[in-house]
Amino acid sequence: MKTVSFFEPVRVQIEQVEALMRSQSNGHHSELAAALDHLLSAGGKRVRPAVTLLAGRMLGGAPERLVTLAAAIEMLHTATLVHDDLIDGALFRRGSPTLNAQWSPAATVLTGDFIFARAAKLAASTDSIEVMHLFSSTLSTIVNGEIVQLFSGRGKANRDSYYHRIYAKTASLFETAASAAAILSPVSDETVEIMRIYGREIGMAFQIVDDVLDFTGEQATVGKPLASDLRQGLVTLPALNYLEVWPEDPDMAAILAGTISEPCVARLIAAIRQSGAIQRALEEAEQFVKRGVDALSSLPDCVERQALLDLAEYFVQRQL
Amino acid sequence: MKTVSFFEPVRVQIEQVEALMRSQSNGHHSELAAALDHLLSAGGKRVRPAVTLLAGRMLGGAPERLVTLAAAIEMLHTATLVHDDLIDGALFRRGSPTLNAQWSPAATVLTGDFIFARAAKLAASTDSIEVMHLFSSTLSTIVNGEIVQLFSGRGKANRDSYYHRIYAKTASLFETAASAAAILSPVSDETVEIMRIYGREIGMAFQIVDDVLDFTGEQATVGKPLASDLRQGLVTLPALNYLEVWPEDPDMAAILAGTISEPCVARLIAAIRQSGAIQRALEEAEQFVKRGVDALSSLPDCVERQALLDLAEYFVQRQL
Repeated sequence: MKTVSFFEPVRVQIEQVEALMRSQSNGHHSELAAALDHLLSAGGKRVRPAVTLLAGRMLGGAPERLVTLAAAIEMLHTATLVHDDLIDGALFRRGSPTLNAQWSPAATVLTGDFIFARAAKLAASTDSIEVMHLFSSTLSTIVNGEIVQLFSGRGKANRDSYYHRIYAKTASLFETAASAAAILSPVSDETVEIMRIYGREIGMAFQIVDDVLDFTGEQATVGKPLASDLRQGLVTLPALNYLEVWPEDPDMAAILAGTISEPCVARLIAAIRQSGAIQRALEEAEQFVKRGVDALSSLPDCVERQALLDLAEYFVQRQL
Repeated sequence: MKTVSFFEPVRVQIEQVEALMRSQSNGHHSELAAALDHLLSAGGKRVRPAVTLLAGRMLGGAPERLVTLAAAIEMLHTATLVHDDLIDGALFRRGSPTLNAQWSPAATVLTGDFIFARAAKLAASTDSIEVMHLFSSTLSTIVNGEIVQLFSGRGKANRDSYYHRIYAKTASLFETAASAAAILSPVSDETVEIMRIYGREIGMAFQIVDDVLDFTGEQATVGKPLASDLRQGLVTLPALNYLEVWPEDPDMAAILAGTISEPCVARLIAAIRQSGAIQRALEEAEQFVKRGVDALSSLPDCVERQALLDLAEYFVQRQL
């Protein structure tokens, strides 16, 4: 497994990102500092900062601006999680209690807003208008995606809307993590485009594997009930693949109609696991990763490029 | 009354700001467009855009960038109101139902986030890193102020914390509305500082008068129960002034301790109105306005400068 090695070339900078993120509550209310500390301690492997730092280092960007950008990206990600968990009423994330599990909705909304504000401040500190544009567009894309999901009918099973959703939810920020690093580096527009493709494709793969883990993961590891998306009427790629083969499955029909019973969910999880739908979803994730990896083929080999390739491979392997 | 005349020099641009704000939902989910439309139709006199447009026009800024900045400022203001009303559970604002009165908390949180995102996008479109910095700092200040208020104990009566609160809540955005307009204009740092002072001082006055109106307004006009701040344990300037003269008032003590009865609130409103506390608060607002007006005295006279002076005067007169 390469779960750790791809961080190696940017280990020091990742620590700088961590410190920069924590310092964002300096001079503000102590409860904010506590909340930010809780959120940052709870988690995340910092794969988005790793993408930014590796891409920027590979392309010769100024280290300090890249650390600032990486912190902006991860703070934006953190802020969206805070509001997401509040909206979903999620009580745990990665095994730690969510902010809304401990705080009032009011404090949770405001903490999310504060982290958005600090993310924007960090993005502005890259001193690049182009990065700032990309950053605010990405935030619009992410939030619009959540709104589309909120207002779309339960159980709408549609491959096109699935791709749109995972782009908005996940791939758009990986795309920005990679391409904004290129924008801050002395490279051509073509290279920025290469990095944009790399980020988008591995981001799509990342979310597909997340959706697979929702069916295959150990419940204790995932930290939420299996098939949590399906329970909410959200049809992800494994379920889409299954539906293509078994369009009339009565358990699926019941769940999509909102009639959820545990035996029914358990039967369906088993059926999806056995149907090849999971395998086909993973193959598709591998295709996304391949396109991301191929995009980098024209760039000269170096330690960071290899790490970006390893990171891309990790994105599909992590489910195994 | 000069309630209308100060808009005159920038009437066309205010309409452009309005159109630009409404266009921010283009290409996004239709429910978002409906929400934004509702919010923008419901209100506001657009005094913040007026400050930006008048200041920028006076100082020779490019009209298009000023319209963009003014839209960014008003969108930021709108987003904070959406989350505020959700947090306070407010059902009406300016006589119109709030978003949270009609929508789920989830949709309301996300709509606020979307408007923040579009405000940031508009701020980035001014193509000024300095404006972007100011913009994101102001958002941090506003949100931090709300968090301080949320976590501060009920009934803490303190003049210093009051000034800090109204700066964060209101004056900081007026300060940015005025100074960012100067930043986008071909003027010296001294002039930017003059506009910063003007914006901050009239912003302080604006909030003091808002707080006065909470005691003196007609309930139908204000759109919420009188003394709504005090009912929530929030001690504003009229109450602070009253407390200085009547520190032992039993009705005040009861309300600050959280024991709220209508007869007690009614007695206290009457007592505050008769005590001179309102008048002293208004005199203080006038002093803030005077400092704001004085700041402009070194700038050459012109239609826009006169409008900014009128606008400042209006900020205290509007209670009468």
